[in-house]
Amino acid sequence: MNGAQALIRTLTRSGVDVCFSNPGTSEMHFVAALDAVPEMRGVLCLFEGVATGAADGYGRMAGRPAGALLHLGPGLGNGLANLHNARRARTPLLLVVGDHATYHKRFDAPLESDIEALAGTVSRWVRRSARSADVAADAAEAVAAAMRPPGGISTLILPADVSWSEGAEPAPPLPVRAPASAPPETVESVAGTLRSGEPCVLLLGGPAARRPGLEAASRVAQATGARLLCETFPARLERGAGIPGIDRLAYLAEFAAEQLAGARHLILAGAAAPVSFFAYPGKASSLIPAGAEVHVLAEPADDVSGALGRLAELAAPGTKPLAHEAERPELPSGDGHLTGDAVAAAVGALLPEGAIVSDEANTSGLWLPGATAGAPPHDWLTLTGGSIGQGLPVATGAAVACPGRPVLALEADGSAMYTLSALWTHAREGLDITTVIFNNRSYAILNMELNRVGAEPAGDAARNLLELSRPNLDFVALASGMGVPASRASTPGEFGAQLQQALAEPGPHLIEALIERIG
Amino acid sequence: MNGAQALIRTLTRSGVDVCFSNPGTSEMHFVAALDAVPEMRGVLCLFEGVATGAADGYGRMAGRPAGALLHLGPGLGNGLANLHNARRARTPLLLVVGDHATYHKRFDAPLESDIEALAGTVSRWVRRSARSADVAADAAEAVAAAMRPPGGISTLILPADVSWSEGAEPAPPLPVRAPASAPPETVESVAGTLRSGEPCVLLLGGPAARRPGLEAASRVAQATGARLLCETFPARLERGAGIPGIDRLAYLAEFAAEQLAGARHLILAGAAAPVSFFAYPGKASSLIPAGAEVHVLAEPADDVSGALGRLAELAAPGTKPLAHEAERPELPSGDGHLTGDAVAAAVGALLPEGAIVSDEANTSGLWLPGATAGAPPHDWLTLTGGSIGQGLPVATGAAVACPGRPVLALEADGSAMYTLSALWTHAREGLDITTVIFNNRSYAILNMELNRVGAEPAGDAARNLLELSRPNLDFVALASGMGVPASRASTPGEFGAQLQQALAEPGPHLIEALIERIG
Repeated sequence: MNGAQALIRTLTRSGVDVCFSNPGTSEMHFVAALDAVPEMRGVLCLFEGVATGAADGYGRMAGRPAGALLHLGPGLGNGLANLHNARRARTPLLLVVGDHATYHKRFDAPLESDIEALAGTVSRWVRRSARSADVAADAAEAVAAAMRPPGGISTLILPADVSWSEGAEPAPPLPVRAPASAPPETVESVAGTLRSGEPCVLLLGGPAARRPGLEAASRVAQATGARLLCETFPARLERGAGIPGIDRLAYLAEFAAEQLAGARHLILAGAAAPVSFFAYPGKASSLIPAGAEVHVLAEPADDVSGALGRLAELAAPGTKPLAHEAERPELPSGDGHLTGDAVAAAVGALLPEGAIVSDEANTSGLWLPGATAGAPPHDWLTLTGGSIGQGLPVATGAAVACPGRPVLALEADGSAMYTLSALWTHAREGLDITTVIFNNRSYAILNMELNRVGAEPAGDAARNLLELSRPNLDFVALASGMGVPASRASTPGEFGAQLQQALAEPGPHLIEALIERIG
Repeated sequence: MNGAQALIRTLTRSGVDVCFSNPGTSEMHFVAALDAVPEMRGVLCLFEGVATGAADGYGRMAGRPAGALLHLGPGLGNGLANLHNARRARTPLLLVVGDHATYHKRFDAPLESDIEALAGTVSRWVRRSARSADVAADAAEAVAAAMRPPGGISTLILPADVSWSEGAEPAPPLPVRAPASAPPETVESVAGTLRSGEPCVLLLGGPAARRPGLEAASRVAQATGARLLCETFPARLERGAGIPGIDRLAYLAEFAAEQLAGARHLILAGAAAPVSFFAYPGKASSLIPAGAEVHVLAEPADDVSGALGRLAELAAPGTKPLAHEAERPELPSGDGHLTGDAVAAAVGALLPEGAIVSDEANTSGLWLPGATAGAPPHDWLTLTGGSIGQGLPVATGAAVACPGRPVLALEADGSAMYTLSALWTHAREGLDITTVIFNNRSYAILNMELNRVGAEPAGDAARNLLELSRPNLDFVALASGMGVPASRASTPGEFGAQLQQALAEPGPHLIEALIERIG
């Protein structure tokens, strides 16, 4: 068989059976091979950033890689922003980047560029397959490398002739190492610190943001009085009624500093030491409180939940976790102006059990965490790397990974425009995704940041670059143009009714929420 | 003054007075400084690939750089595909990539990534400004480097604190070296070859595709019988009535081989030796005819038109160039199915004098060159690097560079979806751009390439990745959603009437041409 067929058969045997694709000529044998290997599902995306963001969302929910098929260096370039987010999320993800035939490279044809340099900025593993006889073994290694804890991006560069040449055979999957255990003396030392009576903050991140880690950490907090916090942008946070609730470290450094104030010990469980998202004149970059000692219970690549469980056995024997109560806000009604907090309340009132929330609401989403904390259990996926344009693609991949679960994409207007064609894939694949666009007609976060960085108040020229008006974006028209049924809400009553209906019907929907102000 | 103000003042003094912008927090002082330096025009783009493509279109038409303001590594990533095209076009272009403050880099905040690695793949000049006292001199050098013949991309990485710190002063512009002259013995040697009586092909590229180069080359062809050809994807080709017409080397290698067949001498004037766009099994990569000798009259960085002029003095004294006759197809009418050739005929019938055509019609545009060859003089901008998603952004920049000239964006459906939000900037800036979407509801070029690379005939799984249907894209709704008036044409009569009206009215318009088949 040819290299492409052997590659795809190897991938499906290794557990990679979805490939978000935006192919070109050099990938045509890969595309043709999909008919020979029906176990692989090809999902067409109209832009590479949608394909890579979808693979990120898939990997976060499935815990194993999806493929993303891209076309040479420029295709990889278009995919980089969401790969940046996936790298920060530590998502297992397999990139297949088609390239010119091996012997064609030296002619510097128009699409020639330095793929390795681009791939190196986001990947933990990069290889160019040299021969069709090698490509299957390369692919098996790529998948294993992507799965190695804590998870990451593998990039397999696939020359066209390696794809089309015969003489290839599928390769067996390679074993994946389990996460390492934190050493007993580390767990014991942290337990001792927690029992010291000095103020402690336990900062969770990575795999600790799932239910087992949260429950163990909650036990520790109950028994020792340690404060619990979660990293600002977790890849996947399990939350809702019956699960211990946890505040995320604030995006704004001044609020984060308040959350951490007074801590004498900062214990990291799968999280990095806290740092300001951006630098601001005269403010510190590190958020470690002055005089605090940092302890690392477990690195993201470790069995973080296991370490927390062992810590709970030592520091909180017999203590139960504190599960969040079931509680929902009332569904807002009335025909006043629509605000961010009314949208949040409606989401909290209606969020279905088992929902997956792809959250890129940015400034408009300020009230969402509070309004949804007691909703039925759900997963919350955040903007791990800060590169906007993630929300709609990640929702795509999450819906493909979890076909039985409703997906809610909560999306800011400015961010939506980076990768809007994800809506077409929602429609093409019939995905059960309800998208809410928070349309405040501005890059509101930048209006805030302009002030925070100490710049001059915005004049006309600056405002011109921060406002999304003149003309206003009409997201109902944009969604309709890509086959997604859409409606517009200007009042709490309209929004509540439209969200209720969209969640009740299968398939994709979009609601444009015209937000007067945040709350 | 602060670094941002000194930077922008230096840019305007160096001739850079437009900046296509997609800023974030780290660029807020740059944004604020725009109000202090009103000579700089900031143009908001909703996606970085629009900003970089617009800067490419601007530079191709203005002959001097526009700025593109991007947000850290992910912003640069989103801009890379159109920077790839700009690199191939040898467009003078100035990237300003905002980054974290110098002292914030080491904390590995979420948006941290390797900007230099990305910039290096497309730039001829990369520098990270270290202090506000240096940024103005760095900027002057960046502009001079971008302008150095034949033109290229300069990337200035601008840390936030370099932008916001005081103590900066504007720097004077630096001189730009003129293009080098081809040595007299080279010109004489090529003239001798042309007079040898052996079959010669004169392949023009880069600056030779402008009127002076075309006229000199036409004189040579008239006098010596040499065949004239232009590179496949010229950055800017001047053509139309009164200008010597020239065929472009075909995209498909088999047709290109026919155009070059029998040549004993291949003379390159600003063009690279011809090479197949992609590799195909069993076919050669190089398109140099067997036994042909390659002569380089002038490199792209040289004064190519000057070299052609001197060649004409030697090889064609007294000979006049052969100007293309004024001729237009009839405006198609009737209510039959709309085809690619009918659209091309309508464009040829109506193209205004001085128009700038941004051509990304791909397969659907097969008939355009013939139908427009005798239209009033105009410029034709092509997909230099093969990275799709160029057409609408390049039209944006061309319209900003040449406010008195009508711009026509001829755009394939699949390619349009990569950077569609350019339409919003067309509306925001009131640009006189008429966009024609050739909607054939497929990646038609890939259906063709699938066959050409010798892959299996497309089964359902492969077809699924090549068709843009289920759901169909509605470009009228998409354009309306971004504030661009739009209409749909299904017949030659409808298309002709709509194009006539769109060209008659100022400001942006979009026509969705539902193409039944190419011709």
